[in-house]
Formats: sequence, structure tokens, C-alpha cells
Amino acid sequence: MLLGRVVGTLVATRKEPSLEGLKFLVLKQLDIEGKETGGYRVAADAVGAGLGEVVLFATGSAARQTKLTHQRPCDGVIMAIVDVLEVDGVVKYDKSEEG
Amino acid sequence: MLLGRVVGTLVATRKEPSLEGLKFLVLKQLDIEGKETGGYRVAADAVGAGLGEVVLFATGSAARQTKLTHQRPCDGVIMAIVDVLEVDGVVKYDKSEEG
Amino acid sequence: MLLGRVVGTLVATRKEPSLEGLKFLVLKQLDIEGKETGGYRVAADAVGAGLGEVVLFATGSAARQTKLTHQRPCDGVIMAIVDVLEVDGVVKYDKSEEG
Amino acid sequence: MLLGRVVGTLVATRKEPSLEGLKFLVLKQLDIEGKETGGYRVAADAVGAGLGEVVLFATGSAARQTKLTHQRPCDGVIMAIVDVLEVDGVVKYDKSEEG
Amino acid sequence: MLLGRVVGTLVATRKEPSLEGLKFLVLKQLDIEGKETGGYRVAADAVGAGLGEVVLFATGSAARQTKLTHQRPCDGVIMAIVDVLEVDGVVKYDKSEEG
Repeated sequence: MLLGRVVGTLVATRKEPSLEGLKFLVLKQLDIEGKETGGYRVAADAVGAGLGEVVLFATGSAARQTKLTHQRPCDGVIMAIVDVLEVDGVVKYDKSEEG
Repeated sequence: MLLGRVVGTLVATRKEPSLEGLKFLVLKQLDIEGKETGGYRVAADAVGAGLGEVVLFATGSAARQTKLTHQRPCDGVIMAIVDVLEVDGVVKYDKSEEG
Repeated sequence: MLLGRVVGTLVATRKEPSLEGLKFLVLKQLDIEGKETGGYRVAADAVGAGLGEVVLFATGSAARQTKLTHQRPCDGVIMAIVDVLEVDGVVKYDKSEEG
Repeated sequence: MLLGRVVGTLVATRKEPSLEGLKFLVLKQLDIEGKETGGYRVAADAVGAGLGEVVLFATGSAARQTKLTHQRPCDGVIMAIVDVLEVDGVVKYDKSEEG
Repeated sequence: MLLGRVVGTLVATRKEPSLEGLKFLVLKQLDIEGKETGGYRVAADAVGAGLGEVVLFATGSAARQTKLTHQRPCDGVIMAIVDVLEVDGVVKYDKSEEG
């Protein structure tokens, strides 16, 4: 899994029928310092993530292992909202300290 | 999923028999500003996308989770046509404003 | 899928038994201008491709969705021979014009 | 599989229900000299790895081939703790010599 | 599939139980000139490869399509030992000519 920050939304009315009802969010990928890497991913939201939140996302076939995404043509899913990320003994991100 | 713009077509008469009837489109990959990244992908079209349209495509085994591509040797599929892409509160792409 | 040009062959007598009979070809990856990207892939040949031909290849689990490669430890397959590639209204490759 | 060093932990209370009970660790990726490559991965821990340990991790669908991760939206798993890594006849890492 | 040269071994006593008995080898990735690319991979050995040999390896779910690796958390497997690699009409590697 990799870290991302939810930065946007995507609306698509013409799509594969099985995708109906899935919410797609735009993620900027983050490194473990919480800095943007320049990469992005559009992912289905399985956990009700909101704009600005730091999340964990899975790609590939893992993205279809949720009730929402099972057997759908989806290769990225947000599967957790990060509360605390600690690296080398330092708290790099703490959701409770965000504005 | 990643964003792409449909820029071309590919004709192949000699191919794996199960691919008969699939339409292959050439996509230039886009970043979330809508700019080309330099990458491309040839993908099966599951939604009737047209030249110039901005689409969402999935890769890997996800690409076989549509009726058209099920159990076929296909690792990329266009599964949605983007109407609106909004990032950091700014509309980066709006299909209704395209010529 | 990505584009490649068949540039070589690979002989391997000691291999996983289920690979017996599969033909492996060496591909140089191409961009959509038909130029080599510097990357390569060794792929199983499902369509009888010949040296010099421009082909479409699939990777990952898609590579096992042909009769030849089903349930074999193979992660790349040539699934189509390209006749015509057209990008931005320009024919970038036309097999009938090759020597 | 690739090599990583366990450098951190991640707490997430809001997550896909099937992930309940899985422990997520933050890995810095290593090259075969044991140096950090700059990449990272968040992975489920299937072997009880501790901070500072050098581990082997698998990504993609392989990450769901453990009892802990079966059918869960998880694309990275620590599946072994490295004791000794020997490359070109030289021991690059020996767990018993670590502090 | 990609080319690699077997350069080392990895010992891991604490591991996912289903991995018991699998031999892990360290590969340096090669380009089609036989030169090292700087990348590496740790792979399960399905063919009895030896140190110094040039091999073909598969990654992703393909790595579990051998008897040894079936349903195990393994994302890389050596599935063939290369005898001869010929590119653009030139023999780039011939196992019989190696010391």
C-alpha cells in the first residue's frame, strides 16, 4: 500500500455499468515524510474519505477485495484513513493535529 | 485508475482469436493538471470513447472485469469517460467546455 | 497493452515443465511514434509473430488468458500483430509499407 | 520479492472492515547492498517483524496468499525476516551481527 | 519476462509457513545486451538455477503458476535458464561459451 492525500473528485456519467454508485477520488501520492511525490492515482473510495485526508490505498487486484469494488473494473481503492504515521521514532503525520 | 486522452486507433487483423471484436484505442497518459506525461497505453474500449475525449482507464487484471474483456488477454481498459475533474478546488477539466 | 518490435529469440532447454512448447520472443518496447524506449520484454508468442514485426503485448495475469499460456508461469504475451497505428490523425506505422 | 527495512508503524481506525486485526508496517526499500533506495511501501505483517529488521516483502496478488491477508484489500505483505543476504560471494547483511 | 543473472542467496528462518522449502535467489536484472540495469529481484527458484547463470524470471501472479510456488505469497519466480539469447541477428549470450 502507498500513502496519498485526497485532493479532488471526478465525475463520469458514461462508464462501465458495474461502476454505478462507486465514488472516485483523486489522490496525490505521498512519501513517508508526508510530501507529495508528483504521482497521483484515481481510486474508488471504500471508507468515506474526505478532501484533505491522508489515506492508504491499494492497487491492482487488491482493489477489488472490498464489497464496493468486487468484480468491477477498478484497479485502485482507498482502504483506510490514516490516523498516525510514525517513522524512525518520529510522528510524521497525526490526523488529530490537522486543522 | 489513471487519466488519459484518446489520441489514436490501432488495427490488428492477426490476433489472439478471443480478441475478435474488441476495439483498441491509443491513450496518451495525463497528469491531474490534464497535461501529457509522455506515457501511453493501448486499451480496449468498454464505453464507446471518441478521439480527443479524456477517459479513466484501469490496468492489470481489472481490465478484464468488463463484459467485453472477460477472460481475454487484455491488460488495459477504458472504463469511464470523464465529465468533470476537480483538484484542490479548481476545475481542471470540464468536458462541456471542450470544443 | 504496449507496443513492441520483435528483435530476437531466446532458447531455454531447462525450464518449468509447463512451459514446454512455448516460443519466447524478445521485444524492444516502442512509444507511439514507433521509436524504441530503451525497455524490453521477453514474451510468449500467441500469434506467430516474426522478426521485425510491430506487435501489441500484454503483461501480468492477462498474459495467461490465451490457450498457449493458460496456467503457465508467463507474465508477457504477444496477442496481436499491428497492421496500422494512427495517432493524432497521422499514420505512425503501416505494416504494408514495411520492406 | 524485494528487500526492505521496517522503519515505522501506521494507525488507521477507519478502514475496510476486513482489514481489522491486520498490522501495517512502514518499510524503506533496500537495494542488494542494503542501502535505502528512496522508495517505501506500507505492508501487512505476516511474520511478526520488528522495527529495524530487514525483511522480504511481496506485492500484488501474492500479498493475499497468507492466512492473515486472504481476500483482503492488501497489496503488500512481509513474508520473511532475512537472516543472511549474500551477494557475489560477500555477506551484505547478517542479522546476527546487528546490534 | 525479464532477464537476470543469479548473484546471491538469501536465508530466512522466520517466514510465512507456506514458504517452507522454497529456495530464494537474488537476481541482478539484465538488459538485452546482457548488461546489468541496476535493478534486482529476489525470486523463488523453480528450475535449479546456479550462481552466475542467466535466467528468465516472471513476476506478479505468474510467479505462482509453478508446483513449487502455487498459492504461496511469492511474486517472483525463475522459470527458465537461458541457453542462447539472440538479438538483431547477434548472439548476445551463449551459455555454452561461459567459463
